[in-house]
Amino acid sequence: MTGKLIGIGTGPGDPELLTLKAVRAIESADVIAFFAKSGNASNARAIAAAHFRPGQIEERLDYPVTTEIHRHENGYKAQIEAFYAEAAKRLAAHLDAGRIVGVLSEGDPLLYGSYMHLHVRLAPRYDTEVIAGITAMSGAWSHAGLPLVQGDDILTILPGTLDHADLVRRLGGTEGAVIMKLGRNLPKVRAALAEAGRLSGAVYVERGTMEAGFSQSLSEKADDLAPYFSLILVPGWSTRP
Amino acid sequence: MTGKLIGIGTGPGDPELLTLKAVRAIESADVIAFFAKSGNASNARAIAAAHFRPGQIEERLDYPVTTEIHRHENGYKAQIEAFYAEAAKRLAAHLDAGRIVGVLSEGDPLLYGSYMHLHVRLAPRYDTEVIAGITAMSGAWSHAGLPLVQGDDILTILPGTLDHADLVRRLGGTEGAVIMKLGRNLPKVRAALAEAGRLSGAVYVERGTMEAGFSQSLSEKADDLAPYFSLILVPGWSTRP
Repeated sequence: MTGKLIGIGTGPGDPELLTLKAVRAIESADVIAFFAKSGNASNARAIAAAHFRPGQIEERLDYPVTTEIHRHENGYKAQIEAFYAEAAKRLAAHLDAGRIVGVLSEGDPLLYGSYMHLHVRLAPRYDTEVIAGITAMSGAWSHAGLPLVQGDDILTILPGTLDHADLVRRLGGTEGAVIMKLGRNLPKVRAALAEAGRLSGAVYVERGTMEAGFSQSLSEKADDLAPYFSLILVPGWSTRP
Repeated sequence: MTGKLIGIGTGPGDPELLTLKAVRAIESADVIAFFAKSGNASNARAIAAAHFRPGQIEERLDYPVTTEIHRHENGYKAQIEAFYAEAAKRLAAHLDAGRIVGVLSEGDPLLYGSYMHLHVRLAPRYDTEVIAGITAMSGAWSHAGLPLVQGDDILTILPGTLDHADLVRRLGGTEGAVIMKLGRNLPKVRAALAEAGRLSGAVYVERGTMEAGFSQSLSEKADDLAPYFSLILVPGWSTRP
């Protein structure tokens, strides 16, 4: 009998934002797998580690690419594809041996998560369960206490990598928006929000739900520094009715 | 000293999808408030009830409007606004007495949640905390095991109430989509998905994370019946890289 694959959402950072279901899955898994940047501690592991039990096998999956390479480049694609194939093979060996394999996934496993790459390779062959997790954006607007969308509002999740004109057009055609992947895109995103008339409501959130997290009105943010764990929230709703 | 308002996300239905933080907030609150349809049991209460303790005060907030009235109609607006004002007043009395008031909110409190109406009325005056919850859509794609978006994908959350042409245009300009508020809009939504060339990938999910939940390919769904707790997922990503 083969084992079971469980994609476990760990939420955005605060260990208290693990679900009861995630905790039970972490406790009962034979193997705990997690992604990490080479040489760094794994964020997902840090969130979940309090629930590990002695004797569990840990499978650390180190990304081969540490600096940001454009995802459409061929070199990147080949390297990352080989990495996911190899990672899936390592987990398949445990599944073939009948083990329950929990894959920790920051945020929600199936929303912009690395777990997805294992899921498409393993779910067709093995019994699989996915446990939803609190997303980084939910963590961010909760931390900021910012009501985002209501009723028939449209919500659009945008990467800051879009070009200026596309950002302006999309921000003008949605009630609520979340802009991710800021980094060096922040000046462009800020200009697009201004042109779309949405700058005054926009809120910048850095490391929401982490201890050092904070949020501020984007128009009051003096610099253009935006680390990886930052995003911009554009509320679509304020006080009606 | 006044008390504290806590918006508590209860997740989409499965009590195991409560976060540890939500459980602790439910256990420690002096007052537990929740919304309900008149004459019906409250879904949020049912999800959280296992963690209630004796002596807690329950504040049931019954919506005054039970049948669906268009939200832009004046009668609806006045009635629902008076309801939220009165509900905020009831909770303010507890806060003034120094009590911790937890408001249960299905899904995530600040994303299409009724809690938002209390938040905007009370948060400016009282110490407030919001605890993120698993959204209905996260519950749905996890239940269906459907990877939704990856990398630079755009994700758009749309209400099925949009007109046909608007739906077609928006579905054609996004990688991933979630369509909510189906009900009698399902035939229109189905036609828009077909016209945008997105029907074949679309998945219909009913009561994801509830016991009677199920999902199926929308193109294989024979009828046009879609209850309130249903939605359509359009994945933006399959197997790349």
